[in-house]
Amino acid sequence: MTSALLTDLYQLNMMQAYLDHGETHTAVFELFFRTLPPRRGFLMAAGLEQALDFLMELRFSPAELDWLARSGRFSKSFVDYLAAFRFTGDVDAMPEGTIFFADEPILRVTAPLSQAQFFETRLINILHFQTTIASKAARLVLAAPDRLMVDFGLRRAHGAEAGLWAARASYVAGFTGSATVLAERVYGIPAFGTMAHSFVQAHDDETKAFENFARSRPKNLTLLIDTYDTETVARNVVKLAPRLRASGITIDAVRIDSGDLAAQAKRVRQILDEAGLTRTAIFASGGLDEDKIQSMLAAGAPIVGFGVGTSLTTSSDVPALDCAYKLQEYAGVARRKRSADKATWPGRKQVWRCFDRNGRMQDDVLSLTDDDAPGMPLLGSIMRGGQPHARPNLDNIRANAAGNLAALPESLRRLDIGATYPVQIGDALVGLTAEVDRRTAQSLG
Amino acid sequence: MTSALLTDLYQLNMMQAYLDHGETHTAVFELFFRTLPPRRGFLMAAGLEQALDFLMELRFSPAELDWLARSGRFSKSFVDYLAAFRFTGDVDAMPEGTIFFADEPILRVTAPLSQAQFFETRLINILHFQTTIASKAARLVLAAPDRLMVDFGLRRAHGAEAGLWAARASYVAGFTGSATVLAERVYGIPAFGTMAHSFVQAHDDETKAFENFARSRPKNLTLLIDTYDTETVARNVVKLAPRLRASGITIDAVRIDSGDLAAQAKRVRQILDEAGLTRTAIFASGGLDEDKIQSMLAAGAPIVGFGVGTSLTTSSDVPALDCAYKLQEYAGVARRKRSADKATWPGRKQVWRCFDRNGRMQDDVLSLTDDDAPGMPLLGSIMRGGQPHARPNLDNIRANAAGNLAALPESLRRLDIGATYPVQIGDALVGLTAEVDRRTAQSLG
Repeated sequence: MTSALLTDLYQLNMMQAYLDHGETHTAVFELFFRTLPPRRGFLMAAGLEQALDFLMELRFSPAELDWLARSGRFSKSFVDYLAAFRFTGDVDAMPEGTIFFADEPILRVTAPLSQAQFFETRLINILHFQTTIASKAARLVLAAPDRLMVDFGLRRAHGAEAGLWAARASYVAGFTGSATVLAERVYGIPAFGTMAHSFVQAHDDETKAFENFARSRPKNLTLLIDTYDTETVARNVVKLAPRLRASGITIDAVRIDSGDLAAQAKRVRQILDEAGLTRTAIFASGGLDEDKIQSMLAAGAPIVGFGVGTSLTTSSDVPALDCAYKLQEYAGVARRKRSADKATWPGRKQVWRCFDRNGRMQDDVLSLTDDDAPGMPLLGSIMRGGQPHARPNLDNIRANAAGNLAALPESLRRLDIGATYPVQIGDALVGLTAEVDRRTAQSLG
Repeated sequence: MTSALLTDLYQLNMMQAYLDHGETHTAVFELFFRTLPPRRGFLMAAGLEQALDFLMELRFSPAELDWLARSGRFSKSFVDYLAAFRFTGDVDAMPEGTIFFADEPILRVTAPLSQAQFFETRLINILHFQTTIASKAARLVLAAPDRLMVDFGLRRAHGAEAGLWAARASYVAGFTGSATVLAERVYGIPAFGTMAHSFVQAHDDETKAFENFARSRPKNLTLLIDTYDTETVARNVVKLAPRLRASGITIDAVRIDSGDLAAQAKRVRQILDEAGLTRTAIFASGGLDEDKIQSMLAAGAPIVGFGVGTSLTTSSDVPALDCAYKLQEYAGVARRKRSADKATWPGRKQVWRCFDRNGRMQDDVLSLTDDDAPGMPLLGSIMRGGQPHARPNLDNIRANAAGNLAALPESLRRLDIGATYPVQIGDALVGLTAEVDRRTAQSLG
């Protein structure tokens, strides 16, 4: 799946044309998000680890080269060039878990033009998706402070990679774990799993189903109680509990997956408490998103954890963001696209962040790397000459995300955003932009 | 990426519990979509080919088995069972490209309980995604009859598999091709590619950029004319044309990617026509969806083809559908889930479709396989005992989709759906449902 051919045909067309005409100077591309949708007051960067793996590992295989040659689209010299193709450039980026805003680059690639051009499609594909999911997950985490949050969304994620990476991106943003077994194996993300309705349905007697499951899977025992009638079943669970306790088995939790979750949780809590099962927790799932979770908790629903599926792994309210990877400098000259509504800021840029005395984010400055703005620079050196520096592990990344979320201003912590975070444009960047426009106007005549 | 561990932990928990208690009888699961969203009057089945590959190829590798054993979660006998795990069951399904509606099963798996249970997560992951994309693509195809429709959305698709499969699903539904090179290599889907803004920006002179590109890539030459100012550039293209023509190079098309596409297309068409470039086509892209395309064509925009990205490959207005895979029968007894708002129809079901005298779809009947409804049955035998029958190729699948779209009633061809397609519930199914409910009520006491 990580074939070098997972790219847009125009990248190969342009590369051949660049090489044919000797356009092999150093290019600078930056990846950024043009605008934030109304329900995203901030975004959280994620996917850099996979982006770096991609840059380092990309090779055209002999079979792919043969296929390209046989397609008749490309010259032999170009296919030979692809056979030796390796990323030899530099990467600067924001660490994963960093909060950022519109127009702020999260990644810069500096490399010979045809290299930097080639990587566009898959770099966006990797970074856009994980950033979209981490940004959604951060909202869910903010909506449910101190609750157990579990990714339940592999089945509705868009394919295998999306499912696996959604587990990773949500864990970066502060989720507790994921139902996806592979995410534990690959990334060490704690796997959570209860039972499905089919388990109950496969038994003629629901209590018998619970008992069978409990005796086979006594650890972290969670019973799913909404297959037929939640409250009736909760009373049956209460009757089952002493029999299991006699065998040393505790019912750690019950899960409700349908209906009015807040109301049912309250009634089930009462049934459990009256029977002394005060330590049996209630876990909820089923079509949840940050708004539903926040309003359930505001209504005092006694729920200790949530399984979030589709809304998380497809970021269903905002399944895509306006992400771009644009040429900002070539052969030492700053460049800029001016298409209607899609104009970009030219040059190599840095973002500086200022904090108030309480450590909360105050404002950012977007300017050129050689500007001298106050605040903390957010992009750092990640690769030089195709070689990466030491990379943070997932625990470090999660800690960075938690620190970033803790520093969010109050207005951005709300699900309905109160204010736009201030991003100033530095004088040096304003000056360069005017200069680029003057030059373009001259060349167009 | 197609690791056997790409599943929910609860599947493995349930399998171990089933096996511990000898629950190994034949189970029947069906995959269906509970409801259609307001802007989807029909859905189009896709992904069966990949689902069958998955069923046939799934194995637990020695490294995965070792990891599972070391996790301490499972018994040795269960890990041994997984080592020999193969799909040995039956599959019935609708052919890809078939149009279907809420509650109609598109796939039925009949297999020993723990097998049929295990495959749930990834079967939904595969079939839900491609069906979501084919259903979106079908709307785009209906909005732009006889136009060239190209998938431009790899970069914003949710990961690698989503990008590749979106190319396939949209081609199934009638797209002309895709920008994704790998989709041509893997599926034979025609690849399309023009140039990006970065190509223009990398040159100090835009006309020089076009000339360089044209001389390197003269076949199907398409120039991107909106990097700076579309109309100015169209006039420069007109001046460049004779110089290229002298070298035997024709400008086949220009692409506009921003601004008011319909208005710009009209002005550019006029500029090209006045210069005699009447055969240079206009291709449009940039944030397109079926509504924008339909209104541009209604306004008479002289556009021959569209590149559709994000709205297609993320199905951005409906990024997920309410898809489920539920136990309908176990050990010869029909089963049903009755959770609030999530009740299912029990038993092994078939869908019969009736057509009017013009060959247009008239209504469907959903009933049990052994019912005897009039019309054409939509589900057929696909695999028996783990062995697939002959499988259709992509051309057959595309033809089936085209035939299905041609048979759509007028009310469902509109982007804003005029009417709900009638799906009747057969008497046999109504009767079985009542019987299952009586039995469940007894068992709950």
